[in-house]
Amino acid sequence: MLQALRAQAEQLDLEDELSPYRARFQLPAETVYLCGNSLGAAPAGIEQRISRTVTQEWASGLVGSWNSAGWIELPRIAARRLAPLIGADAECIAVTDSTSVNLFKVLSAALGLDPRRRRIVSERDNFPTDLYIAGGLIDLLGRRHELILVEDPEEIPAALGDSGGILMLSHVNYRTGRMLDMKGLTQLAHERGALVIWDLAHSAGAVELDLAACNADFAVGCGYKYLNGGPGAPAFLYCAPHHLDRARQPLSGWFSHREPFAFDPDYTAAEGIRRFHTGTPPVLSLTAFAEALEVWRDVDMAAIRRKSNALTGLFIEAVEKLCPDLTLVTPRDPDMRGSQVCLSVPAGGLAIMRALIALGVVGDFRAPDILRFGFAPLYNRFADAIRAAEMLARVLDEKIWEREEFQGKPAVT
Amino acid sequence: MLQALRAQAEQLDLEDELSPYRARFQLPAETVYLCGNSLGAAPAGIEQRISRTVTQEWASGLVGSWNSAGWIELPRIAARRLAPLIGADAECIAVTDSTSVNLFKVLSAALGLDPRRRRIVSERDNFPTDLYIAGGLIDLLGRRHELILVEDPEEIPAALGDSGGILMLSHVNYRTGRMLDMKGLTQLAHERGALVIWDLAHSAGAVELDLAACNADFAVGCGYKYLNGGPGAPAFLYCAPHHLDRARQPLSGWFSHREPFAFDPDYTAAEGIRRFHTGTPPVLSLTAFAEALEVWRDVDMAAIRRKSNALTGLFIEAVEKLCPDLTLVTPRDPDMRGSQVCLSVPAGGLAIMRALIALGVVGDFRAPDILRFGFAPLYNRFADAIRAAEMLARVLDEKIWEREEFQGKPAVT
Repeated sequence: MLQALRAQAEQLDLEDELSPYRARFQLPAETVYLCGNSLGAAPAGIEQRISRTVTQEWASGLVGSWNSAGWIELPRIAARRLAPLIGADAECIAVTDSTSVNLFKVLSAALGLDPRRRRIVSERDNFPTDLYIAGGLIDLLGRRHELILVEDPEEIPAALGDSGGILMLSHVNYRTGRMLDMKGLTQLAHERGALVIWDLAHSAGAVELDLAACNADFAVGCGYKYLNGGPGAPAFLYCAPHHLDRARQPLSGWFSHREPFAFDPDYTAAEGIRRFHTGTPPVLSLTAFAEALEVWRDVDMAAIRRKSNALTGLFIEAVEKLCPDLTLVTPRDPDMRGSQVCLSVPAGGLAIMRALIALGVVGDFRAPDILRFGFAPLYNRFADAIRAAEMLARVLDEKIWEREEFQGKPAVT
Repeated sequence: MLQALRAQAEQLDLEDELSPYRARFQLPAETVYLCGNSLGAAPAGIEQRISRTVTQEWASGLVGSWNSAGWIELPRIAARRLAPLIGADAECIAVTDSTSVNLFKVLSAALGLDPRRRRIVSERDNFPTDLYIAGGLIDLLGRRHELILVEDPEEIPAALGDSGGILMLSHVNYRTGRMLDMKGLTQLAHERGALVIWDLAHSAGAVELDLAACNADFAVGCGYKYLNGGPGAPAFLYCAPHHLDRARQPLSGWFSHREPFAFDPDYTAAEGIRRFHTGTPPVLSLTAFAEALEVWRDVDMAAIRRKSNALTGLFIEAVEKLCPDLTLVTPRDPDMRGSQVCLSVPAGGLAIMRALIALGVVGDFRAPDILRFGFAPLYNRFADAIRAAEMLARVLDEKIWEREEFQGKPAVT
């Protein structure tokens, strides 16, 4: 059975139109890295690019590099490179701050567009930071707004009601890999007078996205997962063009001012998306992100999606054959899943993942019982999927995870 | 006259107890860099440190580096190194986000401690982003608070009134270099029932600070100026220990949660200062900042202050002798100035600074008429002060600034 799966993977790797991109990344030999949904791999040559920023731009060019090395343009450069990946005009994208901070901005902006909106609808299983940020904003505003959390997307229409509100959803769920129907849910929300904010943390660079065609109002997303921007890379946000003139966000630092270097004591928001910036951007981290986005030039996102489906599909097939005790959490229907596969384990939990990592297959674990495997179509191979399933079976069959060394919990899981 | 000044500088450099620190920085030969108040110089060896983070930690260690390379600890490491420089317990310092974002957090927290506080008092000449952030928060909260801007610190008591409020000040003014009496103004505000937020952007690393002894309530500051953390380095904030339990900030992302990796849908703020964090930190930029702070280990801040006063004093003396057309904007009293000297010019403005930079002396310009020169006691020499005054006199005497090449305005000034 394993031989047949290996042969199938080998054939798929041979036919893979995206296979040349693997060489554009640095990956440790002997490691099967299936955690690009947590931290993307390092692009080849990234250390030279960063080294140039440190030695030539910072150490030699010093403050003049804001102009001469184009630091001031970095957020726009990153936005232009990101635009085709998310189906948005670059003039609607700000690359800045963290996803959490950006969510605060777009949520405030969305509420500000119509102060009668008092309801924020999300899923209880949304990524927690999204709920925390909504709660933080609601508390700040004196608890005059309501955060309604549904257990199932089916409940969204009832939760939205007809009086308008904000629908705040993650496109691909961080814990299950389930993908929502962005276009359908956006339309549904609009019909009910609501605005929609999409969190693309687990979508951007992993699935096809067309924010403009879906008529999304706002979006946020993460630079360090499938986009490979480096640890803690700056995040991004999107504001639909028809909201840009009226949208205001409260973190109105100098980089959001019409003329930051006029040092005007009075605030005038920049025209366009720059009003969503706040303070001075972290140039080293932003340089890495902009460089990582350059790898995506000419990548066909439809090909990304096809390969992602094939990778996750093959992995599901292999796991179900080799590891009968595991339960698939991610939807079997490829139209309903992102680029990750999640499996629940009857026992062992984190220790299983720690044992698997010790065998050279890197995924991660989400409490209480979920093993997560992210597939990055730019650099993951079909052989990786088979190898991961094989090693996972070994960890389970040989009860490797029961060893003392895999008990305990590291600071970050 | 120039000869006497040079001899004086030479003697001072010989006697300078901090002179060994200059070798800890990379500075272009032939450049007199007096812009460390805008972007600090690069510490020696910083590229090797960043390169290690990129190649060993990110590219090889991948997601495991959050634990194995201690990325998760970086904000605490940076806070511990920063603590003695600002006279604060490390457990009261968060190194995170930008100064603007942090100001939003502490301002929200300060207002939240007593909702009856409806008045924010600041200076019209405060750094604009501080005013913009206060305005953004006030707008978000429905304009129920008032931002009162005084023209002169003398007006602060009247502006505060007796009903409590928030006093939000920059310790050292970005445009004039004037330093306020932190202890006296904090006490004055407390006597009137107000809380005080200090912006230390132009103070930290430049002057002696003792937030604890001054009984400051909150503070924010910048990592990329005198602290040499690199372009757009993360910023910091301070919350007094007696406010920590009750203080809440609205940008309550997952890194502020008591257990970020429990992925609990319900929010519980972390105990202590970690509640002031928000999202995932930009590891490359934060690594550079933490490394730059290591240079300060064992630096005597009293020696920093002594040298700063001597440097700025010598520069003022030299400029007044060599450039009689310029007007000193910075207070002559060393107790009232930070580590920069600002001079107003009767004509020429930005072109004078551009010409000066072309002659190898880097300062910057603030509209409408101010030349700024920042003195970083860790790496600036007394000879730099004389050389800068000499070149400035040349630009003015020979009208070099009138040349076509120095007209026009770059994107960043």
